[in-house]
Amino acid sequence: MEQRISLITLGVADLARARSFYEALGWRGQEVEETVFFQAGGMVLSLWSREKLAADSGVFGLPSGDGFDGIVLAHNVRSTGEVDELVARAEQAGGTVTRAPADTFYGGYAGCVADPDGHLWEIAFNPGFPLAEDGSLHLPDLGGADGADAS
Amino acid sequence: MEQRISLITLGVADLARARSFYEALGWRGQEVEETVFFQAGGMVLSLWSREKLAADSGVFGLPSGDGFDGIVLAHNVRSTGEVDELVARAEQAGGTVTRAPADTFYGGYAGCVADPDGHLWEIAFNPGFPLAEDGSLHLPDLGGADGADAS
Repeated sequence: MEQRISLITLGVADLARARSFYEALGWRGQEVEETVFFQAGGMVLSLWSREKLAADSGVFGLPSGDGFDGIVLAHNVRSTGEVDELVARAEQAGGTVTRAPADTFYGGYAGCVADPDGHLWEIAFNPGFPLAEDGSLHLPDLGGADGADAS
Repeated sequence: MEQRISLITLGVADLARARSFYEALGWRGQEVEETVFFQAGGMVLSLWSREKLAADSGVFGLPSGDGFDGIVLAHNVRSTGEVDELVARAEQAGGTVTRAPADTFYGGYAGCVADPDGHLWEIAFNPGFPLAEDGSLHLPDLGGADGADAS
């Protein structure tokens, strides 16, 4: 496993409110399918519905008090085989598989594992987000609205 | 505000257990003052006591069910003045200051702000962790035990 994080997804109750907050700080992102992606150095910070994030991660999140961090870290890899290997390795290491590796709605393949403290990692192969040779992730043009267009 | 994250700190109940998990996945870090720091691309993933992390962030965390994510993102800047400016700007943008900017135990200066969904950001000036020109953070030799020595 290369020592890097590809994305951090923050679960949010109101996407427009969350996006406005980060835009007021000067961040500019791309919005696609009710997700906002911000390039952040060699990785990506994204905003997505907290409830969808919980469901997608195999935990069932409510706004608070359920033990769900409301944040998911993602480690992207270069093949479906690497997803299977890494999820299995994390389970052997004491992690809990919350979503077994499977095809994803975005055309990739991914599984989710909680570390011993319940912090969630998605291990993902996403052909739409190719990794650079050094493992960094640079967003392609997603064809969505950029920050400058938003109110 | 430059569009980047300097550190992600995961609050953990048992540092040795958490460190062992990440080491079993192949990660190697440095442990200093009951904190483990892993270089992760141009940023740092760290492990620290969940209760200390909550207290340090100005929230009062219990192991679960308290609305504390258990994760804090840090955005490091290059001066104490930038900390004050950015914390004020985040508050104006709708964030909640959970810890007003002040000197820190590690010889820096920092404040903490919760975004509208309660996700915590530490805005920090840390002279011990200088930023590269591109804003990336590369750990210096902290003089602590490295991962190869552990377990």
